[in-house]
Amino acid sequence: MADKKPLILVTNDDGITAPGIRTLIAVMKEIGDVIVVAPDSPQSAMGHAITINNTLYCDPIEIEKNASHSEYSCSGTPVDCVKMATRQILNKKPDLCVSGINHGSNSAINVIYSGTMSAAVEAGIEGIPAIGFSLLDYSMTANFEPSKKYVKAIVENVLTNGLPKGVVLNVNIPNLKSVDIKGIKVCRQANAHWKEEFDKRQNPMGRDYYWLSGKFINEDKGEDTDEWALQHGFVSVVPTQFDLTAHHYIQELNNWNLND
Amino acid sequence: MADKKPLILVTNDDGITAPGIRTLIAVMKEIGDVIVVAPDSPQSAMGHAITINNTLYCDPIEIEKNASHSEYSCSGTPVDCVKMATRQILNKKPDLCVSGINHGSNSAINVIYSGTMSAAVEAGIEGIPAIGFSLLDYSMTANFEPSKKYVKAIVENVLTNGLPKGVVLNVNIPNLKSVDIKGIKVCRQANAHWKEEFDKRQNPMGRDYYWLSGKFINEDKGEDTDEWALQHGFVSVVPTQFDLTAHHYIQELNNWNLND
Repeated sequence: MADKKPLILVTNDDGITAPGIRTLIAVMKEIGDVIVVAPDSPQSAMGHAITINNTLYCDPIEIEKNASHSEYSCSGTPVDCVKMATRQILNKKPDLCVSGINHGSNSAINVIYSGTMSAAVEAGIEGIPAIGFSLLDYSMTANFEPSKKYVKAIVENVLTNGLPKGVVLNVNIPNLKSVDIKGIKVCRQANAHWKEEFDKRQNPMGRDYYWLSGKFINEDKGEDTDEWALQHGFVSVVPTQFDLTAHHYIQELNNWNLND
Repeated sequence: MADKKPLILVTNDDGITAPGIRTLIAVMKEIGDVIVVAPDSPQSAMGHAITINNTLYCDPIEIEKNASHSEYSCSGTPVDCVKMATRQILNKKPDLCVSGINHGSNSAINVIYSGTMSAAVEAGIEGIPAIGFSLLDYSMTANFEPSKKYVKAIVENVLTNGLPKGVVLNVNIPNLKSVDIKGIKVCRQANAHWKEEFDKRQNPMGRDYYWLSGKFINEDKGEDTDEWALQHGFVSVVPTQFDLTAHHYIQELNNWNLND
């Protein structure tokens, strides 16, 4: 008897008990066989960090009573979780990796700081079709209900169409009621950055320390950007790559006097 | 009296006392005014991680007796160091940010895991011309002497020609004697990945834990890649970008049935 259900690896960066990943697991169980390998604690803003100077723990865990799928809790980063899943826990490559649903935006330049997206990128590097999902609400009480329909539509499209080597999807969902979401829009990453402010304080021993905080600055008015789509009520889908070569600049660099 | 010397921010991911950054500081002092903000401990493989759930320390430190430049030791990641330098310590944007010289390769896909390159990318996001330098020798006793000439040549070219918005340079230097280095070659990032192996052990309490290790797999035979250049005795220079959009795939994605 052939089992045609796809094997779906689920991870995130907010930690294995976060409401966002619980929603993602529920939707994925309607589509395929699910395995969860996710961090045991919040790993937001970990980017593509991996654990090479420390040990990793990774243990089976039961979070939903009598669940029909397996879950593993890992002491490492989101990227560690993907490596652990594909190389240690599973005997085969999953058909899909989904990461999230993140509590908070990973649009524009946030893609580069995001543990959620780095997990998807890591799966992509290993040749697994992958999608990162994020909802524009940082709170733990965020309402993930309106996201479900869009998560399902995008996953089904990826399973039907596949993704080319070297491309994963970055999906952001506006924090709106279902009736107010206008649909899905394919976008490019907006040109934006963070303007940091350091909050300087003193510890009880009198030593200065800092908290990193900042303001998001969008410098890109383009109507083809993820920021524009999200501000106008659309779910944004940005095809994202990990060949970081600025191919357009190679020709110019070859005109420099590097070997004189 | 106008001071025409460029202000150069130096950072790394191996930590502020590593031989690689000491070499980079020495070469930069021949070219400009130097400020060092670097991690107080090794931060290899931290990718683009930033510290948002913890406090940061950043204090002046004297490593070279009676040095003519300032140094700051920071408890955070390489990306934190760049943010701390530009937003807290300096009153102006530096003219250049250099990161390294890393002990070990950051060629091919390593660019994405690398704290060294993430520091350069962060400077690029903030609009500062930036270069990451790496030597293909992981040891703390690596010989950085042959690197000096190439570091200087590339920095002088960047100061002369500038770099366009959104592009930083990823420079890797083969671990060879000066006479055996063939020159500098502009390249693209090779398509490669790591095949991880987890070394499973038991802690004294009987709980399983893992060490992440792996083998580097280069799937790319292209003679225009950084891997080819390094294997053939060249210093590789890859222009590197942080717009991760897979622009070539947007048109195809628009043909999907995302809104049906």
